[in-house]
Amino acid sequence: MSEFQGVVPAIATPMTSDGVFNEAVFRQVVEFNIQAGVHGFWVAGGTGESVLLDDAENRQIAEAVADQGQGRVKNIMHVGAPTTKRAAKLAEHAAKVGVDALCCVPPFFYRRGIEDIVEHYRVVAAAADIPLFVYNLPGATGVEITPDMMKKIQDGVPQLQGLKHSAPSFANVRIFSKMGLDCFIGSNRLMLPAMTVGACGCVDGPLNVFPELWVAIWEAYQADDLAAAVEAQDRATSAFEVLSSCGGSFHAWVKAGLSERLGVDCGDPRPPGQPLSEAQRGALREALETLDLVTTSVG
Amino acid sequence: MSEFQGVVPAIATPMTSDGVFNEAVFRQVVEFNIQAGVHGFWVAGGTGESVLLDDAENRQIAEAVADQGQGRVKNIMHVGAPTTKRAAKLAEHAAKVGVDALCCVPPFFYRRGIEDIVEHYRVVAAAADIPLFVYNLPGATGVEITPDMMKKIQDGVPQLQGLKHSAPSFANVRIFSKMGLDCFIGSNRLMLPAMTVGACGCVDGPLNVFPELWVAIWEAYQADDLAAAVEAQDRATSAFEVLSSCGGSFHAWVKAGLSERLGVDCGDPRPPGQPLSEAQRGALREALETLDLVTTSVG
Amino acid sequence: MSEFQGVVPAIATPMTSDGVFNEAVFRQVVEFNIQAGVHGFWVAGGTGESVLLDDAENRQIAEAVADQGQGRVKNIMHVGAPTTKRAAKLAEHAAKVGVDALCCVPPFFYRRGIEDIVEHYRVVAAAADIPLFVYNLPGATGVEITPDMMKKIQDGVPQLQGLKHSAPSFANVRIFSKMGLDCFIGSNRLMLPAMTVGACGCVDGPLNVFPELWVAIWEAYQADDLAAAVEAQDRATSAFEVLSSCGGSFHAWVKAGLSERLGVDCGDPRPPGQPLSEAQRGALREALETLDLVTTSVG
Amino acid sequence: MSEFQGVVPAIATPMTSDGVFNEAVFRQVVEFNIQAGVHGFWVAGGTGESVLLDDAENRQIAEAVADQGQGRVKNIMHVGAPTTKRAAKLAEHAAKVGVDALCCVPPFFYRRGIEDIVEHYRVVAAAADIPLFVYNLPGATGVEITPDMMKKIQDGVPQLQGLKHSAPSFANVRIFSKMGLDCFIGSNRLMLPAMTVGACGCVDGPLNVFPELWVAIWEAYQADDLAAAVEAQDRATSAFEVLSSCGGSFHAWVKAGLSERLGVDCGDPRPPGQPLSEAQRGALREALETLDLVTTSVG
Repeated sequence: MSEFQGVVPAIATPMTSDGVFNEAVFRQVVEFNIQAGVHGFWVAGGTGESVLLDDAENRQIAEAVADQGQGRVKNIMHVGAPTTKRAAKLAEHAAKVGVDALCCVPPFFYRRGIEDIVEHYRVVAAAADIPLFVYNLPGATGVEITPDMMKKIQDGVPQLQGLKHSAPSFANVRIFSKMGLDCFIGSNRLMLPAMTVGACGCVDGPLNVFPELWVAIWEAYQADDLAAAVEAQDRATSAFEVLSSCGGSFHAWVKAGLSERLGVDCGDPRPPGQPLSEAQRGALREALETLDLVTTSVG
Repeated sequence: MSEFQGVVPAIATPMTSDGVFNEAVFRQVVEFNIQAGVHGFWVAGGTGESVLLDDAENRQIAEAVADQGQGRVKNIMHVGAPTTKRAAKLAEHAAKVGVDALCCVPPFFYRRGIEDIVEHYRVVAAAADIPLFVYNLPGATGVEITPDMMKKIQDGVPQLQGLKHSAPSFANVRIFSKMGLDCFIGSNRLMLPAMTVGACGCVDGPLNVFPELWVAIWEAYQADDLAAAVEAQDRATSAFEVLSSCGGSFHAWVKAGLSERLGVDCGDPRPPGQPLSEAQRGALREALETLDLVTTSVG
Repeated sequence: MSEFQGVVPAIATPMTSDGVFNEAVFRQVVEFNIQAGVHGFWVAGGTGESVLLDDAENRQIAEAVADQGQGRVKNIMHVGAPTTKRAAKLAEHAAKVGVDALCCVPPFFYRRGIEDIVEHYRVVAAAADIPLFVYNLPGATGVEITPDMMKKIQDGVPQLQGLKHSAPSFANVRIFSKMGLDCFIGSNRLMLPAMTVGACGCVDGPLNVFPELWVAIWEAYQADDLAAAVEAQDRATSAFEVLSSCGGSFHAWVKAGLSERLGVDCGDPRPPGQPLSEAQRGALREALETLDLVTTSVG
Repeated sequence: MSEFQGVVPAIATPMTSDGVFNEAVFRQVVEFNIQAGVHGFWVAGGTGESVLLDDAENRQIAEAVADQGQGRVKNIMHVGAPTTKRAAKLAEHAAKVGVDALCCVPPFFYRRGIEDIVEHYRVVAAAADIPLFVYNLPGATGVEITPDMMKKIQDGVPQLQGLKHSAPSFANVRIFSKMGLDCFIGSNRLMLPAMTVGACGCVDGPLNVFPELWVAIWEAYQADDLAAAVEAQDRATSAFEVLSSCGGSFHAWVKAGLSERLGVDCGDPRPPGQPLSEAQRGALREALETLDLVTTSVG
């Protein structure tokens, strides 16, 4: 197994009350997660409001995460963009400032043939020459990377290292793994099941709110303790379900959950994302108290 | 956990060369699987060519499987039909001849609202008064039973015991299980992962060709042996992949695989299903030889 | 243009209060429609509860429609069934009793490859040797017949005459028509637009409740009167929208609408189809009164 | 009917060989289309490579199209962007430089609830206070605006004027029109059929290559000449089919078709879009010659 594995939170992008990237709080979230035992970060990806950030913000985030980590974890930086040129420039910068790998959604908005997708990845990866992860996120991009398509990417992009698999075709986890790829499952609820069929770990947003819950799954699995792994996954999923049922959008409750738990202000989602209502915020606070499984802070 | 659990092959419906149900060979397949350690059967379901059978055949199959099993395994008889009346009559008969439970697809062809689906299940279950399993098979029926819909079925149908979940929404396995339902995963490749999030076992067609491979998963899981369970699932999935890659339709290669492995003639799929070509049959024979993991016969 | 064209109601299958086919009332509905100027019938199809009927009922309906029509209209009899054998037997019978053409859904429930679909149609059509219409109804069958697939059916089935196109791909109407097929549009709301790109007419259930509204579209179109055709389509669609908004399932309100309008009892849908509630029935009665565009009876 | 109607080409965004917006050639394409009798333009939309353009380019294009038109046609400027802020700024600018209306895709990449979509449109429209068109393009955005959703937009956004409907639900054209919206059909092949059920015209990319073909449909329709309209639509669709069958992506052949027809160089699609291969370019040249229906230049 490669060095890319384990619990890899898709980290949020905290904002100030003016809607600007809040680097200080971002570094606190990074540090909190490292202290909790995570193995890496998926940075400025889906949870990190990716395509809502401008390129200068993406660059600042890459610098901050690399600097804060100081080699303690593996940072996988998202560089997806509507044009190949913009994605390649972000990739070049990210590699220069010391992230460990890139991740990139396939071209989105317009539907592209696989040849165009391969060429996009080839150019982006060549601009950086560090390992590349495909971000298989059909719910956002409109295209699901199938094993056949991935084979063509693998043939055309020497830097291909793996993928985050956030698609309904769960059985493809095993197929991607057997292709020699590091396959992170993109759903926090499926970390354990995915690992039993070859996944190398999990990348998802809720992990950066409660990293210790998924670290527990990882540790039980490494210890070959099936019963403990099953119990740890059950607790983690329960925490996710409680929080996500408080209402509001994914970005809103992830940021609010982090704010409450760390005692910082991660800000609101960037519009068109909307903040939690007061009622939703109250429900979330209550939910956090109920989850006494998580009252012991990690950091 | 209830008495319905474990390795429950979706058993094929062998036919004579005239295309008539071959009870003698069917009993041989049943016996072979019981000897291999399976815990029950899913009878005349998707693998068993269900809606291609006429009602007299369905009744004969119910009688045969109950008689052959003699209480050694749990038989779950499929009684789905286009009309509620036909399904209810099949249910009544099945209970009379001694099967242990019913399974039933929701109404198909015409799209129905959930109220109509609940009423269908209520009438069918009331005709038998033995446990009922919902067959969640959107690829065939066009309707996916979601947790919300299942809650309404649970409220309206006292006999509801569980389901076979053959839908892409893998994360629903846990939700159905937490509802107190026996949730069998409907994919042979996902038995182990599904069990780690609450599934009570697996129902699928390939299991009746190589029952020992899935029995091995079950036994490793019961022994809390994670590494062995992972390895057993990997071997089972490999066997499935080898066979299914020989070409031909699912029914064709399941029947051919059984015929080759047991040295009997299970016949061809009922048209519009088509038999394997000679080349496909040859490839399947070769594949079976290659899989020396399965050369030791069970029966 | 062939002899198959124009306004071809998908006729309901009236039932007695015991749920048995009501031939006397069926003949009244046929006669009412013929008097209103329709050009044919689509019999025992989707509106006619097709796969909910048993084979004896299908045969009785074929006999009744052929006998009642006495050559005045073109009767297209549905013979789709889960197995090829059953469909072929129904086809053979239908041709014998004098219907003018067959229609048949592709194999449903199990997903079939195009080769299996062609073979199914080949066998069914060969059993009758009268013109055959494909029933392109992906909402019920799970398979959409694309132009490429239709080309293979055309190559393999000499009796292929056309299709009813009830699929979202509206632009395919022109493609099918350019292939030399009689393409009936399967949506009452799209008769006029479809004719402007090659459709030969319309087949749908609401047509048998208000045949004169769609006959008016046909006549305006034949008279090259664009403004009148647009107005006629608008009135027809309005009538459909008013009725369908009264609640209840499609079969329920089509049958109830016919019962109210003709002063007969068409009965209820066969379960799992459910009848209108009293409130829905009342709303439908009121709606019919409101639609004074249709108070002048045709028959 | 409002002033927004008729033949409204979705105009391409010509690029130089360096991949920079080519304003001179853009103005030539605008002028060519105006001379051919079009009624407006859909600018920097799907055909215009919309989200692949940076904001400075979007502003330059808005200025150029307003200046070139000089009030002769209605210019509808696309201002969709991943964030509400960017879209609103583009809207503000577009209104200032004199375009006649805005169009805007709903938020894309992340799936948003209808409340968030309404708020997005409200803010964008308020920044400009000129008429707004919704761009219903689920193939690119992942969200189909249904009539129910549109009602909420209509209630929340006073500037709402209409939409471009590029979704499979063809029957919704009538529903949107009855809501008082200007509904442009988004498929060149469906201009005539859509107009018979209420569409106010057509917006699509092929129109800017052969504007006279769709102007002919419009004129026949205004003259109430059904037969001529049917024939004009048939010729227009044939031209589209011939060109689109030469291979290559939509943007590639639209730009190449314009280049060949006008004797200018519209450049290639912006990557990840790929140019035509030499063979595809040759096939397109031959196709243009074959289409002698279009050899008479308009300009």
